Amino acid sequence: MEIHPLDGQTICALSTPHGVGGIAVVRVSGPEAWPIVQGFSSRSWSKSQAGTAILTQINDGSAVLDEALILPFAAPASFTGEDIVECHIHGSPYIQRRLLEMMIEAGCRMALPGEFTQRAFLHGKRDLAQSEAIGDLIHAEHAGAHRLAVAQLSGGFSAEVQSFREQLIEFAALMELELDFGEEDVEFADRKGYRALLIELLSRLDALIGSFATGRAIAEGVPVAILGPPNRGKSTLLNALLNEQRAIVSATPGTTRDVIEQSLTLSGIRFRFSDTAGLRETVDEIEIEGIRRAIGTARAARFVIYLLDARDLQSPAGLEAAEREVLEAQAEVERARGELDGAEHAVQPHWILLINKTDLAPAPDPLPVIAGCTPQPISAEERHGLAAIEQELTADFTAALDSSQTLVTNLRHQQALLGAQTALKAALKALDAGLSGDLIAVDNRAALAHLGRITGAITPDDLLGHIFANFCIGK
Amino acid sequence: MEIHPLDGQTICALSTPHGVGGIAVVRVSGPEAWPIVQGFSSRSWSKSQAGTAILTQINDGSAVLDEALILPFAAPASFTGEDIVECHIHGSPYIQRRLLEMMIEAGCRMALPGEFTQRAFLHGKRDLAQSEAIGDLIHAEHAGAHRLAVAQLSGGFSAEVQSFREQLIEFAALMELELDFGEEDVEFADRKGYRALLIELLSRLDALIGSFATGRAIAEGVPVAILGPPNRGKSTLLNALLNEQRAIVSATPGTTRDVIEQSLTLSGIRFRFSDTAGLRETVDEIEIEGIRRAIGTARAARFVIYLLDARDLQSPAGLEAAEREVLEAQAEVERARGELDGAEHAVQPHWILLINKTDLAPAPDPLPVIAGCTPQPISAEERHGLAAIEQELTADFTAALDSSQTLVTNLRHQQALLGAQTALKAALKALDAGLSGDLIAVDNRAALAHLGRITGAITPDDLLGHIFANFCIGK
Repeated sequence: MEIHPLDGQTICALSTPHGVGGIAVVRVSGPEAWPIVQGFSSRSWSKSQAGTAILTQINDGSAVLDEALILPFAAPASFTGEDIVECHIHGSPYIQRRLLEMMIEAGCRMALPGEFTQRAFLHGKRDLAQSEAIGDLIHAEHAGAHRLAVAQLSGGFSAEVQSFREQLIEFAALMELELDFGEEDVEFADRKGYRALLIELLSRLDALIGSFATGRAIAEGVPVAILGPPNRGKSTLLNALLNEQRAIVSATPGTTRDVIEQSLTLSGIRFRFSDTAGLRETVDEIEIEGIRRAIGTARAARFVIYLLDARDLQSPAGLEAAEREVLEAQAEVERARGELDGAEHAVQPHWILLINKTDLAPAPDPLPVIAGCTPQPISAEERHGLAAIEQELTADFTAALDSSQTLVTNLRHQQALLGAQTALKAALKALDAGLSGDLIAVDNRAALAHLGRITGAITPDDLLGHIFANFCIGK
Repeated sequence: MEIHPLDGQTICALSTPHGVGGIAVVRVSGPEAWPIVQGFSSRSWSKSQAGTAILTQINDGSAVLDEALILPFAAPASFTGEDIVECHIHGSPYIQRRLLEMMIEAGCRMALPGEFTQRAFLHGKRDLAQSEAIGDLIHAEHAGAHRLAVAQLSGGFSAEVQSFREQLIEFAALMELELDFGEEDVEFADRKGYRALLIELLSRLDALIGSFATGRAIAEGVPVAILGPPNRGKSTLLNALLNEQRAIVSATPGTTRDVIEQSLTLSGIRFRFSDTAGLRETVDEIEIEGIRRAIGTARAARFVIYLLDARDLQSPAGLEAAEREVLEAQAEVERARGELDGAEHAVQPHWILLINKTDLAPAPDPLPVIAGCTPQPISAEERHGLAAIEQELTADFTAALDSSQTLVTNLRHQQALLGAQTALKAALKALDAGLSGDLIAVDNRAALAHLGRITGAITPDDLLGHIFANFCIGK
């Protein structure tokens, strides 16, 4: 979709969700925003009334369209940095449609998705990472995703990236200066200080890059697979977890046919359970297909919950069989993970072994060690032991959210950070090899460019269009 | 649903439509509205800032929930007449939900449907008919329904009803006075003047009551049936009308199985076409059932469009057969109308006779008179003659909307007007029979009560609950 950067036009859009409601807000931004709305308003207003609610009639020719509350804002003290009018109208489909038509007849054009936020960015009201956070905030459906978006909107991540850039720019300037004196072989830039900076920045980049797996899992929901042969109680466990929490549960058909994904929110963290439980209840070809699918969903999971049956663990032979079974399942999942590409492959799944059906047979005492883990005894049927599972699923994420650590959630940011990391590693290598300042400067500039793309200090033509096209219209 | 009249509680609700959007508005009204929102707002405000937009952070404990625009209003200069805070937040499902939770934790309760508007009524901000108009306005989907709601909201109808009441009250007071002097046989009330008033009011009531059929048809959509034997081009005509207008078309399954209702908007008036066209394409039992259904939808139609085939009208015998066919269809529809109850039965359908397929055979020249009508020649296939049909369908409604005449649209109002009419007729009869003032006063009081229910001057307990329960929550 073609995005018009500041084209001087006045744009309008419905900013509230579509549909019927008590109130709807139509927003207009641009140089003609005030005169256009005043053109069909029964009351006028002056600069001194910016930020004040004005009760007015909106006239459609000689007829009254609505009684509305008008909220004018004056450039540059507005969301977009331009003159804005918010029209708070009755949330009727007809009034919403007609008011937009009237605005377009008066010279507005419909705003493109995210165009208000894009204008805010282009007018320097927010940087690019903060602008993206607005989109994330609007689509946040649970507490975890919401907290990440708020943190990014507050600008902490932007400030960190900006501080990296400022420190690099200082050295870059000194090294560029050396180029001007190329013949004289002077060194303005302090190589030792630069090396210390690179080491420090690389360590901070490492932490940010390492946070992505956790940040992304929180933002998009943590994938969890429940594995085990038929009749181990996989469905029962899933239902017990879902019911126990009185959580917001949604069942959506997965991309793979017959795999249903269920979401539940524990301590504000969204978990996505791939329920392949019903797949292995039959034998022959269908069962083999079922196993394949179960492994397929498990390979990208952050947690693999593997179910054992307490009745099978009553003898040393049973324990040995369980050990073999779990090791085989881990090997299968590991093989499947080999097909994943880099970023996904980097995250090792965390296995949670459970001894289910302790209502039918006691768990071995003391608990055995199986495939290097101590399994937890539970009864999905009687809902015993669920709290410990929930604790194990949520602990890392709630700790990460509660720390003041920045969590990277945006794939674009992660790629830019990886690019900066590569460039700074190259700079360090060049420095240690005693290469000249002009060669080091190339890597330094590359790192600056990567970091600049995060906050929008550097914005290639295609970047903005790509980012804002994913916004909803009216924001 | 139980409605709490002014219970002193502070109420909150999402006032914008549900879903994801740039902006959502959560509204709080009541004595604690300001302190509750200030309790989690990073900025405070004073009375002098009522009506001013305040940019603030909304804090959820130690975390930031959102950056919001707060719009406080002070009683009594607010929509409800109470202290109000509108919180303009980002339209994220999580933020919307969480903010309402925080408000409830702080002592608000969720508003019932229409409760903001109900409080506006109870605080004397609007009368009852105007309050109902807000609900109609929000649900108006096309220009006609919208114009009726705006007219009612502007208070013209309320003022008319109120003027009836004031004139009746004057006489009522004088007649009540006569009761105090019962023994002395004095007449304070001018019988001649009262009679003139009754005649005048009855004539105005007649006009209002008579407007209901038109008002209701505009508000709810005008029902139109297209009749005729198979292969006369009923579907083709309907599709031609739908396409011609590039209108907003919706297909909804009707209450009768196999009857599809299609809507189209002509000159801002919504028409609801019962498309029974496909039903008679087969023979035997199914065809008989089809005819029954077609007649069923036609009996409540405001317009019956009956299709003839130009090829059948080339001989006097063909014209005679057409005459018989149309008369028979009219008789069938009339018989079916006999089953309708009063209000619906009062509206005689308007028949539009069309000679279709003039692309295959010429229409007789001069045009014949069939069943008392002159049919119009059209070709649905080639889209000739459609403009005249549209003109015939819309003329009465656009004229009614363009006139300054009040159109009654609300069944409750219509019933109250009918009640007042009955009472005033009885008063006139009593007057003409020379009955005493106390007997006339009974009828006069009944008329006052009926009229008072329209504007809410008189509000029986169950009335408000019934009216506002049909509103959406948040309004």
